[in-house]
Amino acid sequence: MGLFTKEIETMDDLFVHMLRDVYYCEQLLTKALPKLIDKATDPELRAGLKNHLEQTENHVERLDRVFDMQGLRPGGVDCPAIDGIIKEANEVAGEVADKNVLDAAIIASGQAAEHYEIARYGTLIAWANELGLDDIAGVLAETLEEEKEADRLLTAVAETRVNRVAA
Amino acid sequence: MGLFTKEIETMDDLFVHMLRDVYYCEQLLTKALPKLIDKATDPELRAGLKNHLEQTENHVERLDRVFDMQGLRPGGVDCPAIDGIIKEANEVAGEVADKNVLDAAIIASGQAAEHYEIARYGTLIAWANELGLDDIAGVLAETLEEEKEADRLLTAVAETRVNRVAA
Repeated sequence: MGLFTKEIETMDDLFVHMLRDVYYCEQLLTKALPKLIDKATDPELRAGLKNHLEQTENHVERLDRVFDMQGLRPGGVDCPAIDGIIKEANEVAGEVADKNVLDAAIIASGQAAEHYEIARYGTLIAWANELGLDDIAGVLAETLEEEKEADRLLTAVAETRVNRVAA
Repeated sequence: MGLFTKEIETMDDLFVHMLRDVYYCEQLLTKALPKLIDKATDPELRAGLKNHLEQTENHVERLDRVFDMQGLRPGGVDCPAIDGIIKEANEVAGEVADKNVLDAAIIASGQAAEHYEIARYGTLIAWANELGLDDIAGVLAETLEEEKEADRLLTAVAETRVNRVAA
């Protein structure tokens, strides 16, 4: 590709590209989470995942709002990273025979997805601050805090219950 | 697939599967990092990535040691998650025209990879502790601390220099 075919020229362009990346990611998770909930057994794990599904639907709406604040139509771009994380989650789940071990595998997959989002929202907030988009940084920070909390909850469910039962 | 074709039956099986997942991941990163270093411009970013490449080679050796402690031959399994993260890093880098904006994109990609590893090593350490593999948990904890430190360094380089120059 020559120089003039490159689509990202400025930090604003890169910021919008990353917004579209997380938009795709959050939308995919609204479809992937119900499948993980169906496979999970531990009631506390199922409740935590259901709660996070509601939060994820809310994250999509927040991103709709951010696109609106930027005067842009909401939309995603392909995100091979989250595609790969979900593909791996499904592959591993398909290999696990025991339902308690499956719960441990589901938690691990959930935490891989949470950490991807923590990295992406952390980056977006830093870029928004640098670009003087303080209102947008504030909206994205609400989501980041919920992703971190979801990750902490999965750790707690794993360490207090699921890993012990599975081992 | 029927029940008896499933390969992961116990937490030990799941632990070894995840060890093979991060082994593949670390090996892939020893090949992907030099390409990111070639594309980066900021001297502090380049130095940080070079230092992390050395650490990553050391992480492979640590995993060799962990396989040995478990009486297993070292080896990886396909890991669509890190494949996707690296694919996305290369795609985005290919779309960026400006070298300062490219540095910001490289930091974002590096942090996505670090967070994947932070999630995976965190899980492995929790499982090792539950399985009574305290020595192995200790070895893996050394790597986890280096992944977290690499993530913090990328944040520092981004916030003190790269994002400002790029914006």
